[in-house]
Amino acid sequence: MTTRIWTAALAVIGDEILSGRTQDKNVAQIAAWLNVQGIRLAEVRIVADKPDAIVEAVNTLRERNDYLFTTGGIGPTHDDITVDAIAEALGVPVVFHPQAVAVLEAYYATRGGLTEPRKRMARVPEGADLIENRMSGAPGIRVGNVFIMAGVPHITAGMLDALTGTLEGGLPVLSRTIGCWVAESEVADLLRQAEKSHEGVAIGSYPFFRDGRTGANFVVRATDAALADRCIADLTQALEGTGRSVVAGGI
Amino acid sequence: MTTRIWTAALAVIGDEILSGRTQDKNVAQIAAWLNVQGIRLAEVRIVADKPDAIVEAVNTLRERNDYLFTTGGIGPTHDDITVDAIAEALGVPVVFHPQAVAVLEAYYATRGGLTEPRKRMARVPEGADLIENRMSGAPGIRVGNVFIMAGVPHITAGMLDALTGTLEGGLPVLSRTIGCWVAESEVADLLRQAEKSHEGVAIGSYPFFRDGRTGANFVVRATDAALADRCIADLTQALEGTGRSVVAGGI
Repeated sequence: MTTRIWTAALAVIGDEILSGRTQDKNVAQIAAWLNVQGIRLAEVRIVADKPDAIVEAVNTLRERNDYLFTTGGIGPTHDDITVDAIAEALGVPVVFHPQAVAVLEAYYATRGGLTEPRKRMARVPEGADLIENRMSGAPGIRVGNVFIMAGVPHITAGMLDALTGTLEGGLPVLSRTIGCWVAESEVADLLRQAEKSHEGVAIGSYPFFRDGRTGANFVVRATDAALADRCIADLTQALEGTGRSVVAGGI
Repeated sequence: MTTRIWTAALAVIGDEILSGRTQDKNVAQIAAWLNVQGIRLAEVRIVADKPDAIVEAVNTLRERNDYLFTTGGIGPTHDDITVDAIAEALGVPVVFHPQAVAVLEAYYATRGGLTEPRKRMARVPEGADLIENRMSGAPGIRVGNVFIMAGVPHITAGMLDALTGTLEGGLPVLSRTIGCWVAESEVADLLRQAEKSHEGVAIGSYPFFRDGRTGANFVVRATDAALADRCIADLTQALEGTGRSVVAGGI
């Protein structure tokens, strides 16, 4: 049985990350969340807060993936240009979403009222639906296969939570990890052989240096749990055959 | 005086980051390092460990930026395909670099010798120079405007150190930050005005929620220090004019 692979891309909008001032956290959290939905994060682009850069990334990525997520640039200030750029990419106008206006009116009723800058956060590309924001006022936006999320990681986390189980996906990619105090170069042939003899797995080798010693974690990825387990068992045996001990779960 | 802007792109190669298992640290460290060299990180792509994905990213990014950096995939194992993919992108063969062979021979002389898998790390696209690796054996590679770096962040840090001061750049982008316990939506007009009245600055607004309170940091970026200082002074005065106190350096 061949299983269809579902893919997603992520566009991070992005001056704050590109300047090196802030460490991105959305790539890792969205990747992990997608995997549980049976969707593979296939590619990420971090682009500047410039309309042309956003339009190019959005149009390339949404066309060749099942889903496109974006993070950042949906707040009330002048540097929040994501909605306008995505509407431009899709060739649709920007409109006020009545339900978003209502949500923001309710949220700001006790917080100084819905001023013009705040009302900006109810603007969406025409045809869009809202994604519930469980953490603060402004909702996320879904338009076609594009999911427009917040930049602040814990707000994005709440939006992902609201989307959980609503996107069609395939089998999640499972991973099994073992660790070994060995230079990866000493076991390169053995790794290549283990991958070759278990069709459908991908083995990643991730070296590290810790406490003055060289080690590596080996990650076996597959959608078939029994296959991943067999590969890990064979790889463990092969590593132990060289006289080394193996740490289940990784080091 | 119009100053030429120098730009760089980064291609992160990439399954380990895309799976969500590992948090990337190279984007932030390379961005910060580039800025000191007077080079702006203009865009980042995180691509899968697949030749086609790497070739596409490398050719697009190297052509429209002054420099392209890549991280990851230059080790001794089967999943290390960066050198081959970049050679393919450049249309040149892969060759052994004599100096890289010598470096690796010396490094492994007391570590079990230069085995075949280890010798793989001396393979480079034809015409390449080496980038010193001050942390472990395998060097980085420079070929044309492409800089091929390690995936392990502290090894990349050593390679960046070796490159410091060797790349032509322009004026570094300076940033000045102030923080304020305010919802950014309340000061959106004031921010827009401050950016508009100081040509050459970009103001970013970065909201947060901490200890149950809403705040934001405002980052003024410019290549001209006096201009950035003037903008920060005016913005501080404007924020204080609304009865709020401003925290120099950010919250």
